[in-house]
Amino acid sequence: MNKEIVIEGWIKTSRASKNFGFIELNDGSSFSSLQIVYGDEVDNFSEIEKYTISSSLKIEGTVVESPGSKQSIEVHAKKVTPISISEPTYPLQKKRHTVEYLRTQAHLRPRTNLFNAVFRVRSIIAYAIHKFFQDRGFVYVHTPIITASDAEGAGEMFQVTTLDLNDVPKKEGKVDFSEDFFSKATNLTVSGQLEAEVFAEAFGNVYTFGPTFRAENSNTQRHAAEFWMIEPEIAFADINVNMDIAEEMLKYIIKYVLENAEEEMNFFNSFVDKGLLERLDNVVNSDFGRVTYTEAIEVLKNSKTEFKYPVEWGVDLQTEHERYLTEEVYKKPVFVTNYPKEIKAFYMKENEDKKTVAAMDLLVPGVGEIIGGSQREDKLEVLEGKMKSLGMNLEDYYWYLDLRRYGSVPHSGYGLGFERAVMYITGVKNIRDVIPFPRTVGTAEF
Amino acid sequence: MNKEIVIEGWIKTSRASKNFGFIELNDGSSFSSLQIVYGDEVDNFSEIEKYTISSSLKIEGTVVESPGSKQSIEVHAKKVTPISISEPTYPLQKKRHTVEYLRTQAHLRPRTNLFNAVFRVRSIIAYAIHKFFQDRGFVYVHTPIITASDAEGAGEMFQVTTLDLNDVPKKEGKVDFSEDFFSKATNLTVSGQLEAEVFAEAFGNVYTFGPTFRAENSNTQRHAAEFWMIEPEIAFADINVNMDIAEEMLKYIIKYVLENAEEEMNFFNSFVDKGLLERLDNVVNSDFGRVTYTEAIEVLKNSKTEFKYPVEWGVDLQTEHERYLTEEVYKKPVFVTNYPKEIKAFYMKENEDKKTVAAMDLLVPGVGEIIGGSQREDKLEVLEGKMKSLGMNLEDYYWYLDLRRYGSVPHSGYGLGFERAVMYITGVKNIRDVIPFPRTVGTAEF
Repeated sequence: MNKEIVIEGWIKTSRASKNFGFIELNDGSSFSSLQIVYGDEVDNFSEIEKYTISSSLKIEGTVVESPGSKQSIEVHAKKVTPISISEPTYPLQKKRHTVEYLRTQAHLRPRTNLFNAVFRVRSIIAYAIHKFFQDRGFVYVHTPIITASDAEGAGEMFQVTTLDLNDVPKKEGKVDFSEDFFSKATNLTVSGQLEAEVFAEAFGNVYTFGPTFRAENSNTQRHAAEFWMIEPEIAFADINVNMDIAEEMLKYIIKYVLENAEEEMNFFNSFVDKGLLERLDNVVNSDFGRVTYTEAIEVLKNSKTEFKYPVEWGVDLQTEHERYLTEEVYKKPVFVTNYPKEIKAFYMKENEDKKTVAAMDLLVPGVGEIIGGSQREDKLEVLEGKMKSLGMNLEDYYWYLDLRRYGSVPHSGYGLGFERAVMYITGVKNIRDVIPFPRTVGTAEF
Repeated sequence: MNKEIVIEGWIKTSRASKNFGFIELNDGSSFSSLQIVYGDEVDNFSEIEKYTISSSLKIEGTVVESPGSKQSIEVHAKKVTPISISEPTYPLQKKRHTVEYLRTQAHLRPRTNLFNAVFRVRSIIAYAIHKFFQDRGFVYVHTPIITASDAEGAGEMFQVTTLDLNDVPKKEGKVDFSEDFFSKATNLTVSGQLEAEVFAEAFGNVYTFGPTFRAENSNTQRHAAEFWMIEPEIAFADINVNMDIAEEMLKYIIKYVLENAEEEMNFFNSFVDKGLLERLDNVVNSDFGRVTYTEAIEVLKNSKTEFKYPVEWGVDLQTEHERYLTEEVYKKPVFVTNYPKEIKAFYMKENEDKKTVAAMDLLVPGVGEIIGGSQREDKLEVLEGKMKSLGMNLEDYYWYLDLRRYGSVPHSGYGLGFERAVMYITGVKNIRDVIPFPRTVGTAEF
């Protein structure tokens, strides 16, 4: 206390009376601002109250205990020097703005309380994920963004090209990709899983954390064309180990954020989603449920609830079913396992019943599915048979099949959509509001 | 000691005599393998020596002190169970392979000593970077990968499109981008800097860490089409603070790797680059030099050295000049500052001499430039004037200019090419050998 300091920051609010003035100053280092008090002994006293919101200032003064109830300390300024006065056209004057309007001001919205909290928590979650995996010896792998393969055998993809679109070179009536940068057609990745499997067979435990892309024309609250994914891949692990790690990871991340972003989390709980902290506490303190798809279908059929999409063994679960299971039946996160093989991806391990695969989806209250994963098919002949039956070209995947030829081991992994996790932990409902500069159909601003 | 254990891993080497056998088993969790000793009391004794390299095994046995000098412990196996026997066509039999050959086996090369060490160290460096910035309160920002702007106003870019390349829609003879996914032409980002500046003006200190792209037709050891970049951006900071942080960061990363990857670093020092550890020690323990471009030009001109590219005030420094400065003159890392404005980017802050800008490049022995950065122009009129003189369209950059309208502050930042850092720290000379699945002209395999 009573220490002399020099600080620089931006004006959040400012008010003055005849002999005193108050400025809430924020330098970006924390959610809360610092209260600056100045009196008419300051040289430019009468000028200071004219300094506009978001102007940058340098303050020289003394830190003292604050008599106010909102803060424990404040600064008594001896000198207030403007660095740059914000023009009066500043679009975010002190009043409530809708999130829709703020999306049009994506270059300024990180300065608002909501987005400041969201993007700081986004950063903390990202770090918690790295810390979780690195502390456990997982190796971080940068799988390629530009790729000539399609991990899901599905999903609409963005093409990447250096061809002149005004004059695409053709050969026998078709695009001549031999003239393209990579001498072949390439796309933006939809998943790094297959490449992560390569590394799991060398390092045992690995994870990816990078951008992935979907060129789907879906304009929903939960879909973006560009988003980040975390994909751990674990050798010598069956689906049960996979679930253990997913559960441990999710609890770890939530605990880490609760401990390292207390102010922001309280803000979300007060202004975004009043049940947030209670829901997250419940996640951290519960043992996640585990139920097979077959059991889940029985539970849903016996529930006497009217669903929009009827339930029958063999159908994929819809969000309404997922939320019913996790919110009404189990009242906590629940893994659903062993789905019918027809509705899941080619690389998932076939179970002994030959009807289901060792898939696992984690459903959480308030959202539905947040993690999807599986044990991978490690038997060469089974995998080849599956791929052939789906009409896939085995030669394109020789390297993926080689993993089953040379030292195959049981292995498992899952994908966590990073933005889904940020939405879940902050309570923010629209994916456009948790991405710095969101890319969606028709939108690639900034 | 004498603990019963069960372990699973892959065979690195295997040899047997009449009554005993030895297997080097590796589960991926560390660079060193574990020695397994088995005797003819094991059921399948005569089978075990036939198990091929890279086969996966489960071992049940006892951990004991090793009489050998190469390891402190070994496992006496009671039971050796094959999980999957590697086919005899395994391409990486125990012999020396060239790195060129191993690039064609990118799905298997992480299993070799060299690439195992490289990719584990790559992961550790990535984490060290996050830890450095997060411990200092920097907020991690995911800047967009798909973008409609070009940060450098230069650099060849990859186009991103969902248009049918066989039948590109046209309007008045030109590509009709209104039919494209984002309703406009988009590219893969070459830098997240401009967007990072947005966040620095909200959080003070931020950093990016993500993939960036160059569609340059340059087939060198140091260029890839897809690589990762770290771009910190610091508000209320001039070029000197920028240099302080860059120096602190580089020393931190190196120290972190030396402490957390001792085996791998010793391997590099023995088999890749015999001067590596000495050079890195020198970096950690020296105060980096700081010299202006103008002084550096004088030093080079007075050096009596015959350069391929002649030196004159105004020319850009070539690698030969950079290496001469850092290796021969200063014998340690050195920052060169205040370059002629004509050879640097539009956003760099003009110095009072109106001839130079507050740029900084960090040169290191053995490599040359490893970091490039600058203080940014924070004066609206100066920046606008500069952009106009370069023929840039100011409207495209309204949001970037808004940062100078609304609470502009002195700020600085730099870019570290992640792969350059990995090459520097491991001693590996070709960028293709530090990227899991490299993308270069004509190559987008796996």
